Amino acid sequence: MLSTMQDGNLSIGTLLRHGARVHAGSTVRTWTGDGARTATFAEIGAEAARLANALRGLGVTGDQRVATFMWNNAEHQTAYLAVPAMGAVLHTLNLRLFPDQLTYIANHAEDKVVIVDATVAPLLAKVLPTFTTVEHVIVANGPAEAIAAPDGVQVHAWADLLAGQSAEFDWPDVDEREAAAMCYTSGTTGNPKGVVYSHRSIWLHSMQVCMSDGLGLSPADTSLVIVPQFHAMSWGMPYAAFMCGASLIMPDRFLQPEPLLAMIEALRPTHSAAVPTIWQGVLAALEAQPRDISSLREVVVGGSACPPSMMHTFAEKHGVHIIHAWGMTETSPLGSVCRPPAGLSDSETWAYRYTQGRMPAGVRGRLVGDDGAEVPWDGESVGELEVRGPWITGSYYRLEEEGEDSDGAAKFDDGWLRTGDVGTLTPDGFLTLTDRSKDIIKSGGEWISSVELENHVMAHPAVAEAAVIGVPDAKWDERPLVTVVLRDGATAEPAELREFLADKVAKWQVPENWAFIPEVPKTSVGKFDKKVLRAQHAEGRLDVTRLD
Amino acid sequence: MLSTMQDGNLSIGTLLRHGARVHAGSTVRTWTGDGARTATFAEIGAEAARLANALRGLGVTGDQRVATFMWNNAEHQTAYLAVPAMGAVLHTLNLRLFPDQLTYIANHAEDKVVIVDATVAPLLAKVLPTFTTVEHVIVANGPAEAIAAPDGVQVHAWADLLAGQSAEFDWPDVDEREAAAMCYTSGTTGNPKGVVYSHRSIWLHSMQVCMSDGLGLSPADTSLVIVPQFHAMSWGMPYAAFMCGASLIMPDRFLQPEPLLAMIEALRPTHSAAVPTIWQGVLAALEAQPRDISSLREVVVGGSACPPSMMHTFAEKHGVHIIHAWGMTETSPLGSVCRPPAGLSDSETWAYRYTQGRMPAGVRGRLVGDDGAEVPWDGESVGELEVRGPWITGSYYRLEEEGEDSDGAAKFDDGWLRTGDVGTLTPDGFLTLTDRSKDIIKSGGEWISSVELENHVMAHPAVAEAAVIGVPDAKWDERPLVTVVLRDGATAEPAELREFLADKVAKWQVPENWAFIPEVPKTSVGKFDKKVLRAQHAEGRLDVTRLD
Ligand SMILES: Nc1ncnc2c1ncn2[C@@H]1O[C@H](COP(=O)(O)O)[C@@H](O)[C@H]1O
Repeated sequence: MLSTMQDGNLSIGTLLRHGARVHAGSTVRTWTGDGARTATFAEIGAEAARLANALRGLGVTGDQRVATFMWNNAEHQTAYLAVPAMGAVLHTLNLRLFPDQLTYIANHAEDKVVIVDATVAPLLAKVLPTFTTVEHVIVANGPAEAIAAPDGVQVHAWADLLAGQSAEFDWPDVDEREAAAMCYTSGTTGNPKGVVYSHRSIWLHSMQVCMSDGLGLSPADTSLVIVPQFHAMSWGMPYAAFMCGASLIMPDRFLQPEPLLAMIEALRPTHSAAVPTIWQGVLAALEAQPRDISSLREVVVGGSACPPSMMHTFAEKHGVHIIHAWGMTETSPLGSVCRPPAGLSDSETWAYRYTQGRMPAGVRGRLVGDDGAEVPWDGESVGELEVRGPWITGSYYRLEEEGEDSDGAAKFDDGWLRTGDVGTLTPDGFLTLTDRSKDIIKSGGEWISSVELENHVMAHPAVAEAAVIGVPDAKWDERPLVTVVLRDGATAEPAELREFLADKVAKWQVPENWAFIPEVPKTSVGKFDKKVLRAQHAEGRLDVTRLD
Repeated sequence: MLSTMQDGNLSIGTLLRHGARVHAGSTVRTWTGDGARTATFAEIGAEAARLANALRGLGVTGDQRVATFMWNNAEHQTAYLAVPAMGAVLHTLNLRLFPDQLTYIANHAEDKVVIVDATVAPLLAKVLPTFTTVEHVIVANGPAEAIAAPDGVQVHAWADLLAGQSAEFDWPDVDEREAAAMCYTSGTTGNPKGVVYSHRSIWLHSMQVCMSDGLGLSPADTSLVIVPQFHAMSWGMPYAAFMCGASLIMPDRFLQPEPLLAMIEALRPTHSAAVPTIWQGVLAALEAQPRDISSLREVVVGGSACPPSMMHTFAEKHGVHIIHAWGMTETSPLGSVCRPPAGLSDSETWAYRYTQGRMPAGVRGRLVGDDGAEVPWDGESVGELEVRGPWITGSYYRLEEEGEDSDGAAKFDDGWLRTGDVGTLTPDGFLTLTDRSKDIIKSGGEWISSVELENHVMAHPAVAEAAVIGVPDAKWDERPLVTVVLRDGATAEPAELREFLADKVAKWQVPENWAFIPEVPKTSVGKFDKKVLRAQHAEGRLDVTRLD
């Protein structure tokens, strides 16, 4: 028996129309260095129609890929909406990838158009000649001259191209399972892998972002979206905002702590989202110079484990509530969000807040042990997290070409995504990730969590950042090496730091290998890059103190 | 280009599994008159499996209909989950319908099983012999002897039937467009009409209930669900709770103001939902005897327009925040929810709060004038509200049998549902309903809103309730008649009430016809029944004072 319900598609076109009409007055403010330029959702809606008309004019039809090589700004927001709404596929290119990765990705996705911010045009210029399918480049926020056109590529200035276009577009009714956007992840081994989001998955995910057990984004919010639009769809904020009417603040290229704090003080966001390393920098800058960040109601932190010490500093010194969340490009990315149960004491609540939280109804999770069997939700048994659900990827783009033995295919387990993240689940469904599976330290047959050690070391007042890797050990196979970045002007000795850990972890886990480094190498999306640290160690480039 | 996203169905089975596992400790507490009995979500999950096994044992297969004739309680919650999750269709029968309506509905839906609360078994007994397709009756909360079995019907006690059943059930993967539940509406003319919800529509609607621009239901909430599970799916609360982990308080048959206040005081809900007439009664009882209702964070009011005076009393005397929402059985029912914009003054915020609020991204709305053309969103132009979206009905069950000229078919307009509600939309999408289209008063070619007059009269301190209908008038075609219920012990004269309206509505709208009545007749779901008032007036049974 079929229901009597209407049969419409969940589509980005509907989202665009809704935001531009019902929340016409909500705004996207883009930081310009000393202030912000403002576009209302109604204006973004009109500009999206102009962009779609312009792209049709350039010959973009069907599900062709339109790439972006851009910061977070109003034009990127416009592309986020216009490209999928017209039925084409938005492909966000990561500004911070190596040239050969960019070449691989653009050619693998067969991008036809690239929209580029003038300020990063020189970066694109270097690789553009290797992009074999690109026919048009559109320069946003600058002149067409910002980039030289290789043979067969036409360059247009956004402003010129859109001038005179109609501010109306008859958004097609797209099948909700069709591709809307794609993003490559370099988190896995081998070549980058493409995740292709559908209209449906983006719609459902946007609802989750606005749900109370998600990020709780609301029409009363103004969110400072620091997580890049080229990283995991900016955690879904651009679409969720158009769904619920939350206003956005886009930092453009101003991602250093000082300008971020200037934005917060001037534009007074209620909400923000970024990886922990960004917030570490913001905290350090706040210590050097106090600023008013009291407008912030909630700050979402994910992408790497959030050090508890950072949560406490934000709460106790600045009255800002940090929400810990977990996800990955493959999960759209909202996988779990930490909302502690009601009615607990302060210390009980804190214990919950350190965890990565619960998975919502749309995400089903399980932990799988080394033997492939599920491990219980007892808060202690460790396993690899596997997930499934309507906004979790079930494959990678063109994976079938790679064969069943590829490392891409190995990420899927009978309908479940293997996350590569290892941890525990409590009986009430709270997830604690102890490590990436490849970062776990195997010491004499026992596992040591690099993340747990890092969190403890980072709680020391002299420490700005700490990253722990496993290094070969004659007796134990592997032992932890702690690489430490000291705070400006602070000093500490390895023995003192080791002493600091003594009452925090089991005796056999206390690290004996320490190295001070000027900064922790980071990946293109701001996470600790342990591959680089391991290579530096292997090549003898770290100055290691070994305590006995 | 297809996305790489997983292809799973949004199903009640998934919702059930999620709630019972991740929110295992959340509770459903059912009021028993002097306290509450408690079932955890884990226990409800196990009981749902037992019920599904029992129903299979009775021969329920495929999409057969399992009806409920029950109050809000743990057993009804169990049926809400088990019946759709096993692939069958839940059909909620309204306890307050006339016998011939019940007969029509049960036979039209072809119910195979009816689950009945022992306390209302006598009501069901009267009509059961006329139910032609029912084979089994299951008595909840009482013995099988509570009802006599007509020929061909077997009666079972819930407890006996479920004892010994397995607490596991292999919930099937149902296509999300399949029927999950159905509810008949008697809001239209002619025979009751069946609305059939799908797994998909219920899932999406549940997400909306938990969204910040919806009811914002969260894992930290405990909701006292007063709106009956036989009325518009209890506004989606039973499913939304299993989605997000909110605990439920179910009042069973104790729906009078006194026991409701006892529940609030004893069980301390943070949230509640009911029609205005319930809250009017609660307010009156609160005046007679103060009670502690401070646990309530938000109270959702819908089903009829919420009188502003009531919102003020709740806010100012009791610190309770009333959220005004609009919906209908045909809209699952969440159609619009009032969340005023941020950053406004108190009086501006209040002006927003009186409205029915905004439609979320999942509900598209428009106003259509008498000439069939759309009217502008200018806050002034009046039209009939039409809506569409994934949880809006596009038809009625078996409507095709009624033909294109039926009054059922007339409810649909090229993919839109005609709501029969008339009002305005502001440029920022806030809906104000001025009337049901059939209740509008047409005075000398101009329209008078019965709802607006009622709201003003109900703000008078002597008035408990007021309902306004149009009555024939020689000169103006129709003029308003105000029927007034005075508060216990209060007195007021028509002239005094008219005077009270003088500075509130246009002079020509001020009513001259007044009648005092002991109570306003109500429909089966607690709304003012103006059909009955009009009939009473036509038969000369109202004692009307005409002022000049
Ligand atoms: N809250 C978190 N705690 C620990 N690791 C995280 C967290 N959020 C994300 N990650 C890591 O980031 C990976 C996803 O990276 P990406 O696809 O670049 O977003 C996950 O698989 C995790 O290893």
